[in-house]
Amino acid sequence: MLIRPQTTAPAQAPMLEPLAHGGELAAARRMFPAAPEPFIDLSTGINPQPYPLPALRSEIFARLPDRASIRALAAVAAAAYGAPSADHVAPAPGTQILLPHVAALVPPGRAAILRTTYAEHARAVTLAGHDVNEVADADGLAHADLAIVVNPNNPDGRVVDKATLLRIAKDLRLRDGILVVDESFADVAHGASLAGEVDRDNIVVLRSFGKFYGLAGLRLGFALAAPELINRIEAVLGPWAVAGPAIEIGKAALGDNEWRQQTLNRLAMDAKRLDGLLADAGLAVVGGTSLYRLAESSNATECFNRLGRAGILVRRFAEQPQWLRFGLPADETAWQRLSDALGLN
Amino acid sequence: MLIRPQTTAPAQAPMLEPLAHGGELAAARRMFPAAPEPFIDLSTGINPQPYPLPALRSEIFARLPDRASIRALAAVAAAAYGAPSADHVAPAPGTQILLPHVAALVPPGRAAILRTTYAEHARAVTLAGHDVNEVADADGLAHADLAIVVNPNNPDGRVVDKATLLRIAKDLRLRDGILVVDESFADVAHGASLAGEVDRDNIVVLRSFGKFYGLAGLRLGFALAAPELINRIEAVLGPWAVAGPAIEIGKAALGDNEWRQQTLNRLAMDAKRLDGLLADAGLAVVGGTSLYRLAESSNATECFNRLGRAGILVRRFAEQPQWLRFGLPADETAWQRLSDALGLN
Repeated sequence: MLIRPQTTAPAQAPMLEPLAHGGELAAARRMFPAAPEPFIDLSTGINPQPYPLPALRSEIFARLPDRASIRALAAVAAAAYGAPSADHVAPAPGTQILLPHVAALVPPGRAAILRTTYAEHARAVTLAGHDVNEVADADGLAHADLAIVVNPNNPDGRVVDKATLLRIAKDLRLRDGILVVDESFADVAHGASLAGEVDRDNIVVLRSFGKFYGLAGLRLGFALAAPELINRIEAVLGPWAVAGPAIEIGKAALGDNEWRQQTLNRLAMDAKRLDGLLADAGLAVVGGTSLYRLAESSNATECFNRLGRAGILVRRFAEQPQWLRFGLPADETAWQRLSDALGLN
Repeated sequence: MLIRPQTTAPAQAPMLEPLAHGGELAAARRMFPAAPEPFIDLSTGINPQPYPLPALRSEIFARLPDRASIRALAAVAAAAYGAPSADHVAPAPGTQILLPHVAALVPPGRAAILRTTYAEHARAVTLAGHDVNEVADADGLAHADLAIVVNPNNPDGRVVDKATLLRIAKDLRLRDGILVVDESFADVAHGASLAGEVDRDNIVVLRSFGKFYGLAGLRLGFALAAPELINRIEAVLGPWAVAGPAIEIGKAALGDNEWRQQTLNRLAMDAKRLDGLLADAGLAVVGGTSLYRLAESSNATECFNRLGRAGILVRRFAEQPQWLRFGLPADETAWQRLSDALGLN
């Protein structure tokens, strides 16, 4: 689904604080002190039904993770994501912490980011010394030293097709540029992934573990790239970047194809159910993935506040005040409370 | 205890691979395939009796850590380490991952590292673009742009006193230089810590959580510095650098003064017991802290191999082949096996 960003909105408007990121329940509780508890957090794109935690030996917490276990995790991740080999995978404590490192793979120059998207990319790229240019369509990426695409995009779910991305990567190579594809939500859009193409030497794919597997607190993510780039990323992360519990849980979850398939089916059904609710409430669903849905309404602010007073936090956007992003309710109680808060009962 | 590094040894000799770092049991098992199991790992300076793991709510793994919980951890860490306030503390997924970021706080220039010490500092400083100079005494640090001291030092336990460090920091300030004090083992040498001095604007103290608390797999460490430097470090780490389990366990452990005092007492007794064993075995104890002891012997290689064949891994040093570093045995079985392997029974 392709959503054109509204060109009338300022490209770099400050985000609303303190709700700039999803997941800030503490701030929501201050904002809506009379809301019923428990607060329901629909402000993230995190699967609300996590991968079941395996029993963890205490040794996993006590010992330094050894290289063999990190490489075993890389091998499982390569298979799950479709990367050519474990040598094409750098495990990290989340994709977030990778952003400045990946941006520093090319010397400071011109960075282009396909807008409107996750604000942390612009911040990380600026930290790495690049000039940032937010572009409205994929063709605008080809003239940069560092091009960044979130695919599928957050929040609108826009997908840039593989052929277009590979053409951009080819153009970028002419000036030793790198294409970064943030595939944080690509678990639910597997066909769009460039994971299988990273042996080309100027593509870096970022994969988030915590969103699809519902374990964002674990802090686990991956860079997929040609081995030379992986070596540079791993050098700056150092030998013990990933925690023992993340290694163990990551290996179990990424190797569990049955859970993945069941979860893909469930998320698709739940996204459809959510679309139905939002439509019934008069909110136009204009994009998203099966981990989150983007709704548009001229009454978005009023709706945000109504939901907040009912103890439900959704994601709003300073740049696009007509948008609200909804994550999936975790259980029937949450579905019911959302339905009630939307005035549907 | 002050150990003069041997000036005849090359300052930057390559470390032995694959045993360059402590904790590589998998490599040890390949090296000594007939050794009895379980292998006993004495190759690290990690407390072998960890802080008892509290029960962890599954939400800790599922949700993105929010800013309030990170700042609560920073406040507990500030109190435990003696930093002026939570604003002087940046929590991180281990101190290791902080090293290149801290090195990048000053523009590429001359870095001086007090030798002989933990090899990762030279590597991280080089990554940040500095020329590295390993110096033999603390006075050699004062003419750098970035000066690095591990205090107490690993592996020899050398302690540089606070007055000397503060004088160096003052000299460094003349050229906008920064003093980095790696206090990874300072829990057992509290009087030497510069944590209370970090409001001076050019001192960064690094504190490791995992070593003293015996939870190295958790990946938790801290930078302590003036708030302006903390803000720069936190900007590059991003908003979710530390995992939920690390936040929860860190808060509980760092706030537990009773456990800390009991552990200080136990470690001191165990270090004394280890010194006795090593002396009985004809190994001269030449330094260390109560988390590890450094022994010297002309038969160090033979001793390393004898211990390895008995299923006990200790730490050796390519630059100082006469040295062996011993961590503390975890329990009576391990003490007995060490004693046997040293030929004492």
